[in-house]
Amino acid sequence: MRDGAFDHLVRQFASLPGIGKRSAQRIVLSLLTGKSGAIERLSDALIRAGDSIKPCSACGNLDETDPCYICTNPNRQKPVLCVIAGVGDLWAIERGGSFSGRYHTLGGVLSAMDSIGPGDLRIDSLLKRVQEEQIEEVILALGATVDGQTTAHYIADRLRPLGVKMTRLAHGLPVGGELDYLDDGTISMALRARSAIGD
Amino acid sequence: MRDGAFDHLVRQFASLPGIGKRSAQRIVLSLLTGKSGAIERLSDALIRAGDSIKPCSACGNLDETDPCYICTNPNRQKPVLCVIAGVGDLWAIERGGSFSGRYHTLGGVLSAMDSIGPGDLRIDSLLKRVQEEQIEEVILALGATVDGQTTAHYIADRLRPLGVKMTRLAHGLPVGGELDYLDDGTISMALRARSAIGD
Repeated sequence: MRDGAFDHLVRQFASLPGIGKRSAQRIVLSLLTGKSGAIERLSDALIRAGDSIKPCSACGNLDETDPCYICTNPNRQKPVLCVIAGVGDLWAIERGGSFSGRYHTLGGVLSAMDSIGPGDLRIDSLLKRVQEEQIEEVILALGATVDGQTTAHYIADRLRPLGVKMTRLAHGLPVGGELDYLDDGTISMALRARSAIGD
Repeated sequence: MRDGAFDHLVRQFASLPGIGKRSAQRIVLSLLTGKSGAIERLSDALIRAGDSIKPCSACGNLDETDPCYICTNPNRQKPVLCVIAGVGDLWAIERGGSFSGRYHTLGGVLSAMDSIGPGDLRIDSLLKRVQEEQIEEVILALGATVDGQTTAHYIADRLRPLGVKMTRLAHGLPVGGELDYLDDGTISMALRARSAIGD
């Protein structure tokens, strides 16, 4: 293989998450030798998605309409706001299917390492929404990592003066999880948050 | 997520080899939220590759020129032809860097299961090349699978009347391979093809 259109396309694929150089070569080979029109279909889909999908100006979700399909859904509880780091977290919660409120995407978490400060996240717009949209509960659904918890503490400090109810996700055993494989922190948390077994 | 440009693009990625639905979602999310211009770069690279890369009319390799960079390389031995199933096999041999002849890509192997017959492979053009290009040796570098070996036998039968020398790849231990993990067939092959250790 020489450098050219081929290697350029392989490099583009290899820069995507979860795809190494060997996988990228296999993908490009399958696109070039497989069913005709595969390249056109993929490039058309990319251009269409790039043109039509934009972040929702209210919650930060990605959709073809603004506000997005969650913000405009009349069946979603308006007073409950779930704060998440990114759109991937929103999808993870939606997959669970048990949350009927709305979302607010921060666009990341505070991180000294990556020099992400409060100004880089959608925190001001969160405060604005809490004040203007009669929000009764803010669920801080951030990861149980140092950066996630720092961000949750920071936001809690900023929200406290507004008198809104703040909650966080429960810590404990994952469904299907074996005690044996769990870290000590999670076991301690699950023990402390233990609940009574009904008669 | 609703059906639309997003899901359409996810489905396109999920149809590529080695990418599942979850990975496809992660890729699309990174394209939409990552560095700006990522979508354009990938779609441009796809269109450029689709327009410029074509199979070599002589050997079946993929390149931006026809004949390809291997067929036109004056340093490659013209009398030695290596027959492979697909372009991926050609790259695998080129990575090894020890073959200096030229190639002939069949475009697959004979397969009763997938109803691929001799007419679906580039066998007639192989016979034509052997007759017209003063080929002295044909290396049948096909996989050690049932279909690969059936194809090798079929081609050997067709080539025999032309009186050209035919060879196949050696069977034996892979470099770095442990005996313990090898199948019985390979060990038997490696034993039968054992060679003397020099003094």
